[in-house]
Amino acid sequence: MDKKPIGIFDSGVGGLTVFKEIRKRFPYEDIIYFGDTARVPYGPKSRNTVIEYSIQNARFLIQQGAKIIVIACNTSSATAITQLQKLLPIPVLGVIEPGALSAIRVTGNKRIGVIGTEGTIRSKAYSSAISKLDENCNVFSKPCPLFVSLAEEGWEDHEVTKLTIKEYLTSLLQNDIDTLVLGCTHYPILKSAIQQFVGNKITLVDSAEAVTDKLDEILPNRETKEIGKDNFYVSDNEAKFKQIASKILDMEIEKLIKVKLGEGWFLK
Amino acid sequence: MDKKPIGIFDSGVGGLTVFKEIRKRFPYEDIIYFGDTARVPYGPKSRNTVIEYSIQNARFLIQQGAKIIVIACNTSSATAITQLQKLLPIPVLGVIEPGALSAIRVTGNKRIGVIGTEGTIRSKAYSSAISKLDENCNVFSKPCPLFVSLAEEGWEDHEVTKLTIKEYLTSLLQNDIDTLVLGCTHYPILKSAIQQFVGNKITLVDSAEAVTDKLDEILPNRETKEIGKDNFYVSDNEAKFKQIASKILDMEIEKLIKVKLGEGWFLK
Repeated sequence: MDKKPIGIFDSGVGGLTVFKEIRKRFPYEDIIYFGDTARVPYGPKSRNTVIEYSIQNARFLIQQGAKIIVIACNTSSATAITQLQKLLPIPVLGVIEPGALSAIRVTGNKRIGVIGTEGTIRSKAYSSAISKLDENCNVFSKPCPLFVSLAEEGWEDHEVTKLTIKEYLTSLLQNDIDTLVLGCTHYPILKSAIQQFVGNKITLVDSAEAVTDKLDEILPNRETKEIGKDNFYVSDNEAKFKQIASKILDMEIEKLIKVKLGEGWFLK
Repeated sequence: MDKKPIGIFDSGVGGLTVFKEIRKRFPYEDIIYFGDTARVPYGPKSRNTVIEYSIQNARFLIQQGAKIIVIACNTSSATAITQLQKLLPIPVLGVIEPGALSAIRVTGNKRIGVIGTEGTIRSKAYSSAISKLDENCNVFSKPCPLFVSLAEEGWEDHEVTKLTIKEYLTSLLQNDIDTLVLGCTHYPILKSAIQQFVGNKITLVDSAEAVTDKLDEILPNRETKEIGKDNFYVSDNEAKFKQIASKILDMEIEKLIKVKLGEGWFLK
């Protein structure tokens, strides 16, 4: 029986959609969440910078005792997972492969759309993960950088969001896709507005659910039936994190610790 | 005659609106520009983090030989200027006081609107700078966080931008303002869309022009008539910086140096 916590990191608050799913499915596990709110967003950053930050985040979680790392951030999963798996002494799960597997299971016509940040789409991580699983699948991608800001602004039902969805997705829909991967942890916040635009014939794949399924496969059952503890850490701006977190989680985060940058938990 | 360059820093690419104005007005000066593209945006970050990053940026410019620092970033000017002026051995100019002075000169009815990032508006820096200059002025503020993403997306004429402007500015206009300060270096990119919405009876104040006027007052005339050199540095993603820069500057940046984070130019 391993009493150590599950470690989750994200570039910011969006990864709480992954935390929420994992918490629901694993009520007896302890969980540590780190949101790198000082350096969010990762989407527009270069490959090397995303790798560097991801390593620092993972090492922090390991210092806090994590037994497994879940990279909730799609950009980081797409860019840094191989390096993290090589470097770290514990298992590392990303959201890309589970998301790709989900999409393969869901699609009927083998035409899959993927939306994400510039970094995620540029990396072609979803396309290659999907092709590896089924080389007959066609993948159509579109970066949607404004979705993160709209989700953070709390405009999930706003006319501006609807218009932005239309702008980004109209051309994607012309490819006759039947499945759309929400390839960014912020996007589930806009899920109902996106579903409304694409219609009910297109199934949305939420990588939060997909990565939790994967975790379920590899994590041994916990013997204790004590309710698991949550520990939340950020690198900046606790107030804003708490505010958006309460919307995503439908509960208030009471204890939130700000980690001071540069105090020994960075990769040297 | 001081051959040292003028140093300008910003959280990213938006400060090039300030660079452009300074370059136009001081053709014989050398200029160094640093855009902290790895850590953009500063607007949602906490006060301490913005101060820390601003000090690091300024020290980098001094290491490159700057004789004066212009903080092109409004969030950084609003938050960190006092610390920088205390700490640094050279003059430091921010955009807030010059912008406030411009607004005072322009307004007829003494009712001034200010828009900016969350950090800038939360700091109340414009309100206090304006009140210090004329205590009878009324200031009405509104944070417009999405404007930065819209400018960076290149959607300056897009319907989404028009709708977002309407959403943010409608309530502000009910205060009968005759002057509106664009309190973020990204906002001049959306200037014509904003002017179109607010109408011609409201004068927009662009802090790029205001800070350049101030620089003109304190900088001695350069004797040499040799055309000044430009040096551009970023902390990440050169390609994206170049792409947006070419739109703002109407010219290509050929030489752009990426500064590796953590290599001695950080505050210890």
